[in-house]
Amino acid sequence: DKKGLKFTSADGKYEFGINAQVNIDAHSWGDDGGSLQDEVVARLIRPTFTGKAGNASFRFTPELGGSSSASASIVDAYIEYKFVDSLQFRAGKFKSPLGLERLQADADVIWTERGHSTNLVPNRDVGYQAFGTFFDGALEYQVGLFNGSADGVNLNNDLDNHKDVAYRVFGGPFANSSVVWLQGLSIGYAGSDGQHIGNTTNTQLGSYRTPGQQVFFKYGTGVYSNGKETRSNPQASFYLNNFGILADYVTVKQDVKLGTKAAQLENKALDVSTSWVITGENVGFKGGVKPANDFNWKKGTWGAVELTARYGYTEIDKDAFTLGFASLTSSAQKATSTGFGVGWYWSENLKLIADWDQTEFEGGAVAGADRRKENFASGRIQFRY
Amino acid sequence: DKKGLKFTSADGKYEFGINAQVNIDAHSWGDDGGSLQDEVVARLIRPTFTGKAGNASFRFTPELGGSSSASASIVDAYIEYKFVDSLQFRAGKFKSPLGLERLQADADVIWTERGHSTNLVPNRDVGYQAFGTFFDGALEYQVGLFNGSADGVNLNNDLDNHKDVAYRVFGGPFANSSVVWLQGLSIGYAGSDGQHIGNTTNTQLGSYRTPGQQVFFKYGTGVYSNGKETRSNPQASFYLNNFGILADYVTVKQDVKLGTKAAQLENKALDVSTSWVITGENVGFKGGVKPANDFNWKKGTWGAVELTARYGYTEIDKDAFTLGFASLTSSAQKATSTGFGVGWYWSENLKLIADWDQTEFEGGAVAGADRRKENFASGRIQFRY
Amino acid sequence: DKKGLKFTSADGKYEFGINAQVNIDAHSWGDDGGSLQDEVVARLIRPTFTGKAGNASFRFTPELGGSSSASASIVDAYIEYKFVDSLQFRAGKFKSPLGLERLQADADVIWTERGHSTNLVPNRDVGYQAFGTFFDGALEYQVGLFNGSADGVNLNNDLDNHKDVAYRVFGGPFANSSVVWLQGLSIGYAGSDGQHIGNTTNTQLGSYRTPGQQVFFKYGTGVYSNGKETRSNPQASFYLNNFGILADYVTVKQDVKLGTKAAQLENKALDVSTSWVITGENVGFKGGVKPANDFNWKKGTWGAVELTARYGYTEIDKDAFTLGFASLTSSAQKATSTGFGVGWYWSENLKLIADWDQTEFEGGAVAGADRRKENFASGRIQFRY
Repeated sequence: DKKGLKFTSADGKYEFGINAQVNIDAHSWGDDGGSLQDEVVARLIRPTFTGKAGNASFRFTPELGGSSSASASIVDAYIEYKFVDSLQFRAGKFKSPLGLERLQADADVIWTERGHSTNLVPNRDVGYQAFGTFFDGALEYQVGLFNGSADGVNLNNDLDNHKDVAYRVFGGPFANSSVVWLQGLSIGYAGSDGQHIGNTTNTQLGSYRTPGQQVFFKYGTGVYSNGKETRSNPQASFYLNNFGILADYVTVKQDVKLGTKAAQLENKALDVSTSWVITGENVGFKGGVKPANDFNWKKGTWGAVELTARYGYTEIDKDAFTLGFASLTSSAQKATSTGFGVGWYWSENLKLIADWDQTEFEGGAVAGADRRKENFASGRIQFRY
Repeated sequence: DKKGLKFTSADGKYEFGINAQVNIDAHSWGDDGGSLQDEVVARLIRPTFTGKAGNASFRFTPELGGSSSASASIVDAYIEYKFVDSLQFRAGKFKSPLGLERLQADADVIWTERGHSTNLVPNRDVGYQAFGTFFDGALEYQVGLFNGSADGVNLNNDLDNHKDVAYRVFGGPFANSSVVWLQGLSIGYAGSDGQHIGNTTNTQLGSYRTPGQQVFFKYGTGVYSNGKETRSNPQASFYLNNFGILADYVTVKQDVKLGTKAAQLENKALDVSTSWVITGENVGFKGGVKPANDFNWKKGTWGAVELTARYGYTEIDKDAFTLGFASLTSSAQKATSTGFGVGWYWSENLKLIADWDQTEFEGGAVAGADRRKENFASGRIQFRY
Repeated sequence: DKKGLKFTSADGKYEFGINAQVNIDAHSWGDDGGSLQDEVVARLIRPTFTGKAGNASFRFTPELGGSSSASASIVDAYIEYKFVDSLQFRAGKFKSPLGLERLQADADVIWTERGHSTNLVPNRDVGYQAFGTFFDGALEYQVGLFNGSADGVNLNNDLDNHKDVAYRVFGGPFANSSVVWLQGLSIGYAGSDGQHIGNTTNTQLGSYRTPGQQVFFKYGTGVYSNGKETRSNPQASFYLNNFGILADYVTVKQDVKLGTKAAQLENKALDVSTSWVITGENVGFKGGVKPANDFNWKKGTWGAVELTARYGYTEIDKDAFTLGFASLTSSAQKATSTGFGVGWYWSENLKLIADWDQTEFEGGAVAGADRRKENFASGRIQFRY
């Protein structure tokens, strides 16, 4: 049906499913001095296999797409066991419970690329997690033990003996209240705490990217993580009929070392993203927009249209530059992005996106001048199943 | 059933399918001086996932086989939307509409390896294409905008800002006529036009291979594409009952540069391949041979047997050598191949092939002497589903 | 159902199936001097696709997991044809018929990692095999022609023109007798014979690992295989109700060369592994343990529990060291392992394992001293479907 293939045994005990997501993207850069290619890419090609046997289940998703590599890799791979709704376990490779924008499913994100707050949280981590929901799903929690991925990193194997603890509580305090316009408000807090002991080869430090996926900040050669990394991540969302807003703020305290110098740096990132479906359909954190009428040129129905806007920044600790852990010539101290987009839903399965993101920088060019503004126009054709 | 797994929703609006192709090949070289290994390889291991939701559909195929690499990669990945038969759109990674031999599906090609004309067209490209059929499929067209893959290259990401236009018209002028023996004649023309601006690192130039997949021509170090590449590709096929012939001719005009020298070179390739099913079953461009009786040693039925022959060459512009863009010591100026084969269809799903290809060279060895003749014997066991 | 997804056409002639196995493992090392990381890994993520059309069938399994690499690869890929039970053919990439422990399916192995005897046999090879069973499966045989994989190697492409012959006979002499306690005894013999002509780049020599997957022996730089490799592999298993034992012994005679020196070395490995299901369920070589009652904390049923123990060693020919083909400073001459484990089957699909393996070495450290003992604790959560 609309949501892929699913088989259930007669007694309901066994299930097997296959889903798929295909994103074909176009990237275009304005006056970029010629260094970036306008291109079309098979950005994300992901079949997902799921199975269930009683209370146990598994899920795995390989990634077959990507712009610069021809190699397949694993995105998610985990096993779950459900005691009750409020106590479930998960083991494997998956998103650690950090970053509201990161935790939104790829197919549900209203932008072709995620924004700034995603820079400071892991992409995927490997470990164990307990999680659950209370009050008919109005409150959810996750708490887990992970190998400890660096910022933005999609981890496969661990690099030190130390583990990260990550946790999150998220809920709608008025979800079950009678005040309709408050029901869609959810607030939460997530964080992580752990030691990352890198070295000059495996630095255990991430680099940060613009919405156009260009690296604007990286630590200097020889710098590595050598101590605690602590993330703090307040987050909120609000959905009311055809209007939605998602806010995600992350700070990271990171112990770094270069030769005999050591310091604790604090980087910050914010993302605020809004959505307004002008054709009137409901929006939400999950499941995308379901057009009242699918696109059909014979019948003269045109699907649903969504206007989006977002603002965000990543701000690096100034000490990173003054103490010599990064160079203001090659890395910017702050990147601030403003974006606008249009989403056109032809059906629940087919969606077109056109986005425009402008990013301004402080520093990052020769002699500490400001890096050239980035103008990133992107388009997507997405099939989800 | 015979053609893989396919699920259709009750209303016919949604479909999901999985198909698979497995080719286990054997390669053997005669007197090759010991440089090439006789070997068995899992040449091509490809599951294909397809889905449909109304007029929209997707398809993707990873490659899990290959002789020299253990890494999976993506072969095809695209989304389609069909307005009417005569106007459909496709976006993603797929074969650009060039090369009749290249466009024939891997499972339908009657040889273990494609021939010379495939050298001069892209393997896969990434972009957008409009296509359709007229007169009950008697005439088909494709026209697309692509990143612009170099000859023989399986492109994933773009290397410059310039795009290629590629187009093709192909049809059977007598397909709906009453002259039976002319119904199976189809003729067509395809071409591409675009700028490829390479550099010494990403040359945007292909190298050319024999049917035994050995490189016999490559441009010299430091040579790169620096301007227009224009392909011209007349093509034809003729199928009458148990006899078939496929002809494919490609010329490529290519602007190359080496230091301060620049030139436009013109390379040419031809392939003519014939098929004769001695057990009498029909042949065609699509779908392979369906044995009148499957192989069954108990019943004494033996499936279908097909004899094949082909001739082809790749001819490099002599200026490439005289102007110094390639070395006659390491690259041949011309390679001419003659091949014979037998195909044994045990059923629609299982097929055995034994091929022999001999390739003669002009140049390509020390002091501009002719490279040693290549004798390539290959066998295939193929399961398609 | 319990064993994954399977579709059969109405006439039973066509089948298509998907199975999956997901292993999430934890590795921990005691006092290892800090060189090895405690970590959690998606150790093995394998969907399996199978199809059947009459007597022909195919099967392929990609590997999407692994501790140190993000790249997918192919594990098994083959086509089979069955004339009768006693005569079947297989072509492609699969396990050559060597090593009883290697031949046991990954999901059925009662340890997180295989033991010593697996060091001396190929992981996977590529080639052709005839096989079959007699006496209702009481006797089985395999005989095949393979590219010729080095010890422990997962081969994709061949490295020389020479092929290996590998063969195996295995059966239960009392399987159909009335003496119940002898019915579960099986004995067999396997072997391989072939030339492996390597060179200093492709040495065609394997390296050997502990149960913790650490390399403790490798040949010195410049050493390569230059002649015959002959494997001899007596093997036996015994299963009686809830008790099982598996014994696997391998010797390898290997012609090696270093510069002008040549020698024939003989390495040996043994593995004996026992299993005792204290909750009383039956054990066997195939299919794992089926709990009498699945784990269900509400009902107070706890699944099945299995205790395991094993002993094994790999012993290198002393001539390897005295003649200079390996260095006693970096490679051990013998590694002996003792292991204990617990398996907890929550259902036929979900299984938890906790293992502890200790390995002692002779040689392998500075000045020929003994390498530090390895203490490897591992855990697994496995979902099979």
